[in-house]
Amino acid sequence: MPSSSVSSGEPGSRQVDDVVERHRGTLDRALTAIQTREYWSPYSDDVATYGKAAHAAGAAAFHAMLGQPLELHQPGVDGVVGPAPVDGGERSPYGITLRVSYPHVDPLVLLPEMGAAMSTWRTAGPLVRAAVCLEILTRIHARSFEFAYAAMHTSGHGFLMGFHAGAAHALDRGLEAVAYAYAEQTRLPARVTWTKRPGPTAEPVVMTKSFQTVPRGVSLLLGCATFATWNGYPGLFASLATGNAVLVKPHQWSVLPLAMTVQIAREVLRETGFSLNLVCLAAELPGEGLGKVLAARAEIRIVDHAGSGPLGQWLLANAPQARVYTFTGGVNSVLVDSTDDYRGMLANLALTLCLYSGQLPTSPQNLLIPRRGIDTDEGPKGFDRVTGDLVAAIRTLLADAEQAPALLGAIIGPGGRACLRHANSGALGKVLLASHPVAHPEFVDAQIHSPVLLELDANNPAARETMATDHSGPCYFAVAVDSTEVGIAVLRDLVRRKGAMVLGAYTTAPEVERELVNACADVGVSLALNLTGDWFLTQSAVYSDLHGTGANPASNASFCDGAFVADRFRTVQVSKPLHPGLAQKL
Amino acid sequence: MPSSSVSSGEPGSRQVDDVVERHRGTLDRALTAIQTREYWSPYSDDVATYGKAAHAAGAAAFHAMLGQPLELHQPGVDGVVGPAPVDGGERSPYGITLRVSYPHVDPLVLLPEMGAAMSTWRTAGPLVRAAVCLEILTRIHARSFEFAYAAMHTSGHGFLMGFHAGAAHALDRGLEAVAYAYAEQTRLPARVTWTKRPGPTAEPVVMTKSFQTVPRGVSLLLGCATFATWNGYPGLFASLATGNAVLVKPHQWSVLPLAMTVQIAREVLRETGFSLNLVCLAAELPGEGLGKVLAARAEIRIVDHAGSGPLGQWLLANAPQARVYTFTGGVNSVLVDSTDDYRGMLANLALTLCLYSGQLPTSPQNLLIPRRGIDTDEGPKGFDRVTGDLVAAIRTLLADAEQAPALLGAIIGPGGRACLRHANSGALGKVLLASHPVAHPEFVDAQIHSPVLLELDANNPAARETMATDHSGPCYFAVAVDSTEVGIAVLRDLVRRKGAMVLGAYTTAPEVERELVNACADVGVSLALNLTGDWFLTQSAVYSDLHGTGANPASNASFCDGAFVADRFRTVQVSKPLHPGLAQKL
Repeated sequence: MPSSSVSSGEPGSRQVDDVVERHRGTLDRALTAIQTREYWSPYSDDVATYGKAAHAAGAAAFHAMLGQPLELHQPGVDGVVGPAPVDGGERSPYGITLRVSYPHVDPLVLLPEMGAAMSTWRTAGPLVRAAVCLEILTRIHARSFEFAYAAMHTSGHGFLMGFHAGAAHALDRGLEAVAYAYAEQTRLPARVTWTKRPGPTAEPVVMTKSFQTVPRGVSLLLGCATFATWNGYPGLFASLATGNAVLVKPHQWSVLPLAMTVQIAREVLRETGFSLNLVCLAAELPGEGLGKVLAARAEIRIVDHAGSGPLGQWLLANAPQARVYTFTGGVNSVLVDSTDDYRGMLANLALTLCLYSGQLPTSPQNLLIPRRGIDTDEGPKGFDRVTGDLVAAIRTLLADAEQAPALLGAIIGPGGRACLRHANSGALGKVLLASHPVAHPEFVDAQIHSPVLLELDANNPAARETMATDHSGPCYFAVAVDSTEVGIAVLRDLVRRKGAMVLGAYTTAPEVERELVNACADVGVSLALNLTGDWFLTQSAVYSDLHGTGANPASNASFCDGAFVADRFRTVQVSKPLHPGLAQKL
Repeated sequence: MPSSSVSSGEPGSRQVDDVVERHRGTLDRALTAIQTREYWSPYSDDVATYGKAAHAAGAAAFHAMLGQPLELHQPGVDGVVGPAPVDGGERSPYGITLRVSYPHVDPLVLLPEMGAAMSTWRTAGPLVRAAVCLEILTRIHARSFEFAYAAMHTSGHGFLMGFHAGAAHALDRGLEAVAYAYAEQTRLPARVTWTKRPGPTAEPVVMTKSFQTVPRGVSLLLGCATFATWNGYPGLFASLATGNAVLVKPHQWSVLPLAMTVQIAREVLRETGFSLNLVCLAAELPGEGLGKVLAARAEIRIVDHAGSGPLGQWLLANAPQARVYTFTGGVNSVLVDSTDDYRGMLANLALTLCLYSGQLPTSPQNLLIPRRGIDTDEGPKGFDRVTGDLVAAIRTLLADAEQAPALLGAIIGPGGRACLRHANSGALGKVLLASHPVAHPEFVDAQIHSPVLLELDANNPAARETMATDHSGPCYFAVAVDSTEVGIAVLRDLVRRKGAMVLGAYTTAPEVERELVNACADVGVSLALNLTGDWFLTQSAVYSDLHGTGANPASNASFCDGAFVADRFRTVQVSKPLHPGLAQKL
């Protein structure tokens, strides 16, 4: 038992034993799920199952945090981030006042403390670490509504997406990483007796060998603006579960969800007798550029980054001392060849384009459609007819004044809005559907805008560059291609040059499907085919779907596979002869 | 069955089925061995079991290769490497004439061919790839004596070490990598049906998902001079088994073992219907610096390097497009605190220091001994007594004129010999045992020299720098330290600054053992305790021992663990609804 080798009151105490006992079953179930890839989750994503009282209490707790300092009791505090809403700081895309303040820390003080914190964490072993991580996830789960509102009012999610991506599914991603980390760390036996007979008459050599996992060092999480927890928890929990200390540097627009996470982690670490400094927050001042400063430090041995492409490239080139996992996103596309469910396809695409205003890393930007049109269950449809029907489907979907803002969410940051204005002007291509502001029933200052759909011709070189550029916000292109074959060639080129998190396609032709599958394997991107029902290209089912392939420029890793966890720890071996004096002397 | 989806005459033909059937059992046994870490090997390292006829035939085959071009039928040949023995080229440290010549290739021609070769190899799947790799290993095994002599006459191994490290144990390392690669690639099911019920009354979402492993790209092996196959096979076979093409750039001093390997691999690939260009050789002209040129190319997505530290650092900083695995070695040390088998310890250390003249990456350079002496089963022994007895043990071992050259092997390259001359002069420290030339019964020009042992004082700053420098060749330091505790502190400092592949220690005190184990976990190095019999610090038992930890500057990876294989391939997912029209429309 990992807990029997440490003294009471320390890790290995009753608190630690209790945590292990409480979470062992969930860990085992998660270990099964990541092998079978079947649906499973311990964190329900059905808001109704939590009850209205929990929702109300969570909403109240969220509002109680506003305008207050978020206390973390970290060493090396040398200033305050916030609470004044400055340029580049945290502010709700729904327009409410947040004014939460966070400690600013001196890395020269913090990093040595984090280094020192790893010793007992290392000794505790994989099972205790996994259990403590699961306790942190359980505490976050208990505050799901607070996290949902924190995600909503930093990233601009609609409430339901905030609840899903900000809480339930983020918890799933965290647990998935813990399960992978545990599985990877327990591949070798802790101790083994090894016997080799050098020759037929020689005495056997008998050795005892032990294998201990050791951390790499301090792990740095560079948070992202749109999915702070969902994109952050895999790296955070993978690194923590493998024995590393984790320094969390949130995106300046989205500090609160990760600050709350750090607060809860430190609370659990304290209760279980470990050093609080295993998880710390490094909130940054506007213009400080703290991410690069930290990433280049010798103490930082792992970096998890989801966000800007140039920063991802910078990290790979300038932090050679660290193992860098980077998800920078690319340009996702959908190829439409043919369908046996035209209405289902239109409905599915319309919702996909509206969801969170195209701000998901998996949102498609380009819809490639043969200029001669497509075959459907309703007969052949010309290019103009398909785009016209799609525009109508989007309009229908957004006609519901209550549903529209919930689906669209709010647009985070000035880039998306600028992009919409530019697209609306017709400068990028022929406007098939113009964007317009959408009112929110509750938040009058909410930055909500409907999508814009433009028409491009893939034979036009300028248009090819337009579609190869990642446009932020709900800016989409219906791209005419000469044929399905040309469309597949365009997909290959786009993925190779710009990367993609995922591709979508609609086809009823087996030979087209084979070509697509082959193209996706060649260029290293995952493919979702013929989505016409209640599953959307933007979605990623934790424990089952891989998010990103790591095989094209959009990311160099996946959530979650062996490669995402295997190099976050190393193994130290101790060998000794079982009978030191047994063998014959020279 | 992975082979049933491809047409006959191609991969999936009877040849491929046969190869799978032939090797499936060995693969399964290797998969068990890497989990249990018990002793196992399909490649006997007992020369006697092969018979004298095999030995004679292998020796004749080796000699028949000398003076001949080694044919590979590669595309892009634009010149010849060798056969004239030029400065920096291939020459036997035993003084015989090799004069083998190799094709020189133009990477601009070769790399696109290698890229194109991966398509059918990818489709073949993990089991077929593993089986083909095992067939390559089996063919190499059949030529073990040729590989033993090739290792001997390039790296300078004694014959038995050539047979072990050049053939049997290198094959073990290759098979170990194949087993890890296969296990890693088959963690996800090839196909799964996934069902989620979004809410209590909603229709279930049912998706089929398939997971296909795809290669990273072309993998570059930068061979090392001393253990071309043992250090090269893990990366070569891990990359090949995970679907990548492998370009082999041998060290200029040791081309033949890897060129033979490439030749055999291409023969097996041809026979099984795959592209020969999955494995190619890039022999370099003296002064060409081909390793850096290739490593920085966009097509190269994986680099395996064992050898020079500066090149390892260069690769990490200058090949950000590639996943770099580097084993550069460090400074290994042994701490002597106490022993219950003084004679066994001396004999074990003496052999360790003589073996291959200290040219193993695991050879210890520094022996740290408390200046007050040590406790032993023969009573206390002062510092001078211990070093004097060690000198006597080395002299005894080398007194046998037949055993001495076989044990010492020959010194490769001019650096080791220069180092010995410098050490012999007394410039580095007090000479306890001077090096002298050792005659070989067969090869009069063999570069064989006995070890030099110098005395240093750890309190002397210059001495601390001397012991922290990696001296090539059999140059060892007996270092006086104030106490065992100080010795452990010196070990920590050396590993942190310079890295180490392994540490050794002798102690009978449980508290010293605990401190050592803790120190090794802290600084990330493996430890061998109280070796007094027929197992030596320099040895690494494949399928059981980890070679290098990847947690200190000596290497950033281990032979072999999940991290060594997991990121050599990526996974592409294809999802589609099982009942596309089932779910309710929007």
